[in-house]
Amino acid sequence: MKKDSLKSEIEAVYPRMVELRRQFHQFPELSFKEEKTSMQVASILKDLGLDVRTGVGGNGVVAILEGTLPGRTVALRADMDALPIQDEKTCDYRSQVDGVMHACGHDAHMASLLGVAQILQQRKEEIRGRIVFLFQHAEEQIPGGAAQMIRAGALDGVDAVYGVHLWTPLPRGVVGIREGTLMAAADSFQIQVTGKGGHGGLPHQAVDAVVTASHLVVNLQTIVSRQLDPLKSGVISVGKLQGGESFNVIAESAVLTGTVRTFDPEIRSDIQRQIGKVAEQTCQMFGAQCDYRYQWGYPAVVNHPAEACQVAEVARWMLGKDQVWEISPMMAGEDFAYYLQERPGAFCFVGAGNEQKDFVYPHHHPRFDLDEEAMKISAELMIHTALAALK
Amino acid sequence: MKKDSLKSEIEAVYPRMVELRRQFHQFPELSFKEEKTSMQVASILKDLGLDVRTGVGGNGVVAILEGTLPGRTVALRADMDALPIQDEKTCDYRSQVDGVMHACGHDAHMASLLGVAQILQQRKEEIRGRIVFLFQHAEEQIPGGAAQMIRAGALDGVDAVYGVHLWTPLPRGVVGIREGTLMAAADSFQIQVTGKGGHGGLPHQAVDAVVTASHLVVNLQTIVSRQLDPLKSGVISVGKLQGGESFNVIAESAVLTGTVRTFDPEIRSDIQRQIGKVAEQTCQMFGAQCDYRYQWGYPAVVNHPAEACQVAEVARWMLGKDQVWEISPMMAGEDFAYYLQERPGAFCFVGAGNEQKDFVYPHHHPRFDLDEEAMKISAELMIHTALAALK
Amino acid sequence: MKKDSLKSEIEAVYPRMVELRRQFHQFPELSFKEEKTSMQVASILKDLGLDVRTGVGGNGVVAILEGTLPGRTVALRADMDALPIQDEKTCDYRSQVDGVMHACGHDAHMASLLGVAQILQQRKEEIRGRIVFLFQHAEEQIPGGAAQMIRAGALDGVDAVYGVHLWTPLPRGVVGIREGTLMAAADSFQIQVTGKGGHGGLPHQAVDAVVTASHLVVNLQTIVSRQLDPLKSGVISVGKLQGGESFNVIAESAVLTGTVRTFDPEIRSDIQRQIGKVAEQTCQMFGAQCDYRYQWGYPAVVNHPAEACQVAEVARWMLGKDQVWEISPMMAGEDFAYYLQERPGAFCFVGAGNEQKDFVYPHHHPRFDLDEEAMKISAELMIHTALAALK
Amino acid sequence: MKKDSLKSEIEAVYPRMVELRRQFHQFPELSFKEEKTSMQVASILKDLGLDVRTGVGGNGVVAILEGTLPGRTVALRADMDALPIQDEKTCDYRSQVDGVMHACGHDAHMASLLGVAQILQQRKEEIRGRIVFLFQHAEEQIPGGAAQMIRAGALDGVDAVYGVHLWTPLPRGVVGIREGTLMAAADSFQIQVTGKGGHGGLPHQAVDAVVTASHLVVNLQTIVSRQLDPLKSGVISVGKLQGGESFNVIAESAVLTGTVRTFDPEIRSDIQRQIGKVAEQTCQMFGAQCDYRYQWGYPAVVNHPAEACQVAEVARWMLGKDQVWEISPMMAGEDFAYYLQERPGAFCFVGAGNEQKDFVYPHHHPRFDLDEEAMKISAELMIHTALAALK
Repeated sequence: MKKDSLKSEIEAVYPRMVELRRQFHQFPELSFKEEKTSMQVASILKDLGLDVRTGVGGNGVVAILEGTLPGRTVALRADMDALPIQDEKTCDYRSQVDGVMHACGHDAHMASLLGVAQILQQRKEEIRGRIVFLFQHAEEQIPGGAAQMIRAGALDGVDAVYGVHLWTPLPRGVVGIREGTLMAAADSFQIQVTGKGGHGGLPHQAVDAVVTASHLVVNLQTIVSRQLDPLKSGVISVGKLQGGESFNVIAESAVLTGTVRTFDPEIRSDIQRQIGKVAEQTCQMFGAQCDYRYQWGYPAVVNHPAEACQVAEVARWMLGKDQVWEISPMMAGEDFAYYLQERPGAFCFVGAGNEQKDFVYPHHHPRFDLDEEAMKISAELMIHTALAALK
Repeated sequence: MKKDSLKSEIEAVYPRMVELRRQFHQFPELSFKEEKTSMQVASILKDLGLDVRTGVGGNGVVAILEGTLPGRTVALRADMDALPIQDEKTCDYRSQVDGVMHACGHDAHMASLLGVAQILQQRKEEIRGRIVFLFQHAEEQIPGGAAQMIRAGALDGVDAVYGVHLWTPLPRGVVGIREGTLMAAADSFQIQVTGKGGHGGLPHQAVDAVVTASHLVVNLQTIVSRQLDPLKSGVISVGKLQGGESFNVIAESAVLTGTVRTFDPEIRSDIQRQIGKVAEQTCQMFGAQCDYRYQWGYPAVVNHPAEACQVAEVARWMLGKDQVWEISPMMAGEDFAYYLQERPGAFCFVGAGNEQKDFVYPHHHPRFDLDEEAMKISAELMIHTALAALK
Repeated sequence: MKKDSLKSEIEAVYPRMVELRRQFHQFPELSFKEEKTSMQVASILKDLGLDVRTGVGGNGVVAILEGTLPGRTVALRADMDALPIQDEKTCDYRSQVDGVMHACGHDAHMASLLGVAQILQQRKEEIRGRIVFLFQHAEEQIPGGAAQMIRAGALDGVDAVYGVHLWTPLPRGVVGIREGTLMAAADSFQIQVTGKGGHGGLPHQAVDAVVTASHLVVNLQTIVSRQLDPLKSGVISVGKLQGGESFNVIAESAVLTGTVRTFDPEIRSDIQRQIGKVAEQTCQMFGAQCDYRYQWGYPAVVNHPAEACQVAEVARWMLGKDQVWEISPMMAGEDFAYYLQERPGAFCFVGAGNEQKDFVYPHHHPRFDLDEEAMKISAELMIHTALAALK
Repeated sequence: MKKDSLKSEIEAVYPRMVELRRQFHQFPELSFKEEKTSMQVASILKDLGLDVRTGVGGNGVVAILEGTLPGRTVALRADMDALPIQDEKTCDYRSQVDGVMHACGHDAHMASLLGVAQILQQRKEEIRGRIVFLFQHAEEQIPGGAAQMIRAGALDGVDAVYGVHLWTPLPRGVVGIREGTLMAAADSFQIQVTGKGGHGGLPHQAVDAVVTASHLVVNLQTIVSRQLDPLKSGVISVGKLQGGESFNVIAESAVLTGTVRTFDPEIRSDIQRQIGKVAEQTCQMFGAQCDYRYQWGYPAVVNHPAEACQVAEVARWMLGKDQVWEISPMMAGEDFAYYLQERPGAFCFVGAGNEQKDFVYPHHHPRFDLDEEAMKISAELMIHTALAALK
C-alpha cells in the first residue's frame, strides 16, 4: 500500500475516529464492566461486515477480516476499559459518569483500531491472509482480560500479534519501541504483622508491631541492594504502611502493602521468595506473627526481536529515523504481555502528547487528555505493520 | 480519733457514698465538661456547711472546713471527670450517657471524699487547723485541671496535700504506696515525614516516606538502648505509624505518633531532644522534610518522703503491715504531680479489685467496675492521714 | 571497742600496712598466678598466730582467729591478684614486673586486712566468736577465685561475710554503700557470623557477613529498648566488631564480641536468650550461619539489707552522716557476689581518691594509685563491723 | 590475509610465544616495577626492527611498525605487570619470585602480542598504514599505566585501539565481547567513624562507634535500593568493617572500607555523593565524627559500537558464530577504559580456560594458569582486527 494514498484514506476516516473516541470518553466503563462499550464496538465491527464474536473470555470482542488472498494471520489489539478516577476536565466530551474516566487513552485505542478495521475492510481484495481485531476488556485490573481472551481462543490460528499504546509522555509524531523487555512484571504483596498490643509505657509486656514492621521495611532494602544481580532490574516498594491505632498504646498489628517490579522471571521468583524470608524472620525475631501474601500481576512485556524490528522499520519509513526512539524499559505493566508469551509480536508507544495544546498530563491523571491526531499515526502504523507482517 | 468509733461513723455514711457514686456513674461528664457534676458536688458541700468556691480554674470546686482549733492546713483531692468510652456493663447503675463512662473510678473518689467531708464536718470541734477539699476537673486530659486550679489559688495557704486513687489491680484491703517517684511523666510526640511521592517502580525519582519513617523508628530504639543511663527509666513508644496511601505509589508522607514515659526531668528533656535529633538527621539522610512536635504531659508524681511515710504508717496501723505494699513506680501519669511540685504531700493507691465479685477489669476498660467497699478504706485513710498531718 | 583507742592502734600498725602494700605493689602477680603473694600473706598470718590454710580453691588463703569467748563467725575478705597492665607511674614503689600491675588496689586490700588481723589478734580476749580472714585469689578473671574458695569450704561455719573495695572515684573519708543491688552481673558473649565471601561487585553470589553483622548490631538495640522492663536495668554493648579482610571482597565472616550488664537474674537470662534469638534470626534472614556463645561472668553483688545497714551505721558513727553516701548501683562486676549468694553480708566502697595528692586515675588505669591513708579507714571499718556483727 | 596461511605462520611462532610467556611467568614484577620486563620487551621489539620508545609514562613501551603503504594508525595493547600473590603451582615455569605472580595472564598478553609484532613485521609490505604496539605497565594498580602512557603521547596519531584479555572463565575457542559497557568503574572508599570510647556498662557516657558504623552499613543499603535508577547498575560493598578493641569497652572508633562498581558516570557521582550524605548524617545522628574518603578507580570500559562489531565479526569469521558470545558487562575494572575515552576501539575476552588440562582457577588465584594455546587465538584475532581496521 502506498504511503500517500493510505494517508488520505485515514484523513477521511479521522472525523469518525474522533466522534467515536469522544463518545467512548463520555461513557467510560470500569474493568470487567465494559458491557455497553463492547456491545457498541461489536455493532460497529458487524456493520463493517466482519465476522464478530462477542463475550470472548468476558467482555472481549474478536472480529476477523478475511483477505481475499490466502496467507498468514495477524492480530491487532485495542483495550476498552476505563479507570475509577473522577474526570476533572472541563471540555464538552468529558466523562458523564461520576468517578469513572478514560484516563489512559483506551477510548482512542478503540477508535483508532475501528478506523483501521474500516480501511482494511475496504481493501480486503489486496490482503493476503487474515486480520484478527482483538478488542480486549479489563487491561487495568488483575487478572486482566488478555489471559481470559487467550483461554477463550482469541489467538487461535494467529501467527503474530501487535499492539499500540497512545502515550502522552512522548510528543505526537514520535514512536517509542525496543526489542526485548519493554514493560515490567508488576506484582503486589501484603504483609500483616501481628504483635501483641499493650500499654505505651510497658513495652516488655507487648510485641510492638510498629517496631517490627519498621525493621521489616529496613530489612527489605537489602534484597535489592545485596541479593539482586546488579545487572538485572528489580524494585520493591512498600507503598503503604499502617500500624497501630493510638499514640499511647503499643500497636497490636501493622500492615504493609507494596509492589514488586521486575523484568526477569527468575528475579521475580527470587524476590517473591526473599520478601517472604525477610518478613518471616523479622517477625520471628521480635516475637510477632507474619502473614505474607504475594499476588502475581502481569508478566513482563517482552517484544520479539524480529517483530519489534519490523514495527520500528515501518515507523522509520513513515515518520523518519529521528522520530523512532529506542526507549528504556518501563516499570509499568501491561497484560499485552500474555499475548507475547503465546505468539510472536510487538507492542509500541505512539506519542500523543502536545504541549501547545496542553496535552501534558500523565496517564491516570484526572486531567489526562491526548492529542487525537495521534490516532491517525497509530492507525497508519497498525495498517502498515499488519500488511508487512502478512507478506 | 479512735479507730473503732471512726469505722462505725464511716459505716453510717457508706450507703450515702454508694448512692452518690452510682449517681455520678450514671451521668458521667467528659474532661473539661464536668458542669453538672461539679454543681452537684458543690451543692452537697454547701449543704454540709462548708465554705465552697466553684469555677476554680475551670470546673474545679474548693471547699474549706475550718477546725475549731487553730493549726495547719491540709488539702485532700478527688477528681471528677469521666472518659470517652462506651459502658459495656449491664448493671442498673451503668452509664446513661452514650460513649461516656466513669471507667477510672473518679465517681468513687468524689463519693468517698464527700463522705470524708461529712464526717470531718461533724467533728470540726476536734480539728486543729483547716481541711481543704479539692474536687478537681479534667484529670484525664492534658493540660489537666490540677495546674489550672493551682493557678486559681486552690493551694493557697495549704501546707500539705494528699490524694488517693482507687485501684482495681490491687485487691480491696491493700494500700500501695512508695516514697519518691510513684508515677511517670507521660508526654506525647508527633513526627511528620514529608518525602516526595512517585511511581512505585521509579524509586529514584521519589523520596520514600515509608522507608524514611521506618528507619526513623529503628533509629529511635538507640536512644533508649545507648543514650539513656541504664539506671534510669525511659520509654519511647511509637504507637501509630501511618504512611502512604496506595500499594503501588511511593509514599509522599508518613506520620508517627508516640508517647514518652520518664521519671527524671533531665532524662525527659534528653529524650525530647534526642528524638528531634534522630528525626531530623534520618529525614535529612533520605532527603525528606521533618516536622517534629513534642507535647509535655503531666510531670512525674513524686511523693515527698515524710508525707508518704506518714500515709504508709497510717495505713499499716489501719490494715496491718502485710496489707501495705511498697509498689513499683507506674508508667501511667497523673496531674496530682502538679500539687506535689508545689506542696509536700503524697499520693497512694487503695485496692478496689475483687475477684469474687468480678471486679477484675483494668481501668479504662469498657467493663471496668470497682468494689465500692473500698470507698470506706479510702475515706478512713484520708481522715486519719489528714488528722495526723494536722498534728 | 572504743573509737579512739582503736584509732591509735591502727596508727601504730599503719607504717607496716604501707610497707606491705608497697611490697605487694612492686611484685604483682596475675589472676590465678598469685603464688608468691599468697605464700607471703600466709606467712604473715601464721606469724600472727592464726590458724592458716593455704591452697584453698587455688591460691586462696584462709586464716581463722578464734576469740576467747564463744560466739558467731564472721568473715572478712581481701583479694590478691593484679592486672595485665604496664605500670606507667614513676614512684619508687612502682611495679617491678613488666606488663603486670596492681591497678585496682588489691595490694592495699591485703595490707589493710593484714593490719586488721594483727590488731584483732592482739585483742582476741575481747572477741566473742570467730573471725575468718579470706585472702582470695583471682578476682579479676572469670571464673574467679571466690567460687573456688567457697567450693573448697572457705565459708564453712561462717555466719556473715564482709568486704571492702578501696575506691579512687570516692574521696578519702567517704564510704559508699547501698542496700540490695550494688554491682552488676557482667557477662560476655561472642557471635560469629559466617556468610559466603565473594567478588565485591557480585553481591548476589555472596552472603555479606558485614551487612548481616551490622543488621545484627542494629537489631540488638531493640532488646533493651523494647523487651526490657523499663524499671529494670540492662546493658548490651558490642565492644568489638571485626568483619571482612579486604575492601573489595565481600566478607565471608564477621565476629562480634560484647558484654551484658544486669542486676536481676531473670533479666540476665532473658537478655541471654534474646541475643541468641536476634542473632539466629538475623543470620537466617540473610542466609548466614550463626555461632553464638554466652559466657556468664560474676552474678550481681546484692547486699543483704540488715548487714548493709549495719555497715552504714558503723561508718556513720566513725565518719559522720555526711561522709556515708548511698551510692547508685555500679555496672562493674565483683566475685564477692558469690559470697553474698551463700551468706548474709555486705560489700562497700571506701574512698581512696585525693585530688591534692593526684590520686585521680580510675581503677585499671596505667597510672592508678590510691591514698594509702584510706587503708586506715578500711581497717577501722572492718574491725568495728566485725565486732558489731559478732554481738 | 588468508586465514590458513596466517594460521600456519602463527603455528611457527607459537613455540617462541610459549618460551617467552614462561620466562615472564618465572620472573614477574609488580605494578610500577616492571623494569626488567619492559627492558626485555623493548629489546625483542627492537630486534624485530620496530621503532621503539621506552619509559613511556613510566615503564611503558611503545613500538611502531610502519607499513609500506600509507594509511590509518591502529594500536594494539598488552599489559605487563604481575600481582602480589604467592604462586602455589608446582610446574617448572612457576614464579621464581617470592610473593609475586603473573596470576592474571599479562605474561601471555605480552608473549602473544610480541608474536603478533613478529608476524606483522614480516608482512609489512602488505600493510597500509601504521601499527602501534602498546606494552603497558601497571594495569593492576590505581592510577594505572594507561593514563600515564596516554599523557606521554602513546595514542598520538592513533585512529583506533584494540585490546585482548585472555580469560579462563571462558573456554579456549570462545571470544566474549559486547558493544557499549563491558567492564565497570571500580572505585574504593573509606569511612572512619569516631565516637567516644567508654565503659561497656555505661553507654550513655560514650558514643558507640560500633553501633554507629552498623547503622551506617544498614543505611547504605538504601542508596542502591531506593536512590538508584532500577534500570542502571550500581554496587556498594563494604568489604571490611573494624570497630573497637575489646569486648567490654565501648568502641571509640570504627573503620569501614569498601568498593563501588558502576557503569554510568552520573550514577557513579551520585553514589559517591550519597555515601557521603548517609555517612555524615548517620554519624551526626549518634554524635560521632565522620571522615569519608572516596578514591576513583578506573572508569568503565565502554566499547565503541563499530569497533566492537568489527572485532565480533572477525572472531565469528575465525571461529564460527557459536564461538563468539555476547557477554554481560563485568563488575571488574580495567584501565583500558582510558584508551577508549580517547579513541575509538574495543576490548574483548579470549577464552583461555580448559577443564581437561585443569586450567580452571579464576584470575588472581594462587593456582591460576591458562591454556597457552589461547595465545594463538589472541594473536590471530589481533592481526585480523588490525588489518581490518586499516582497510
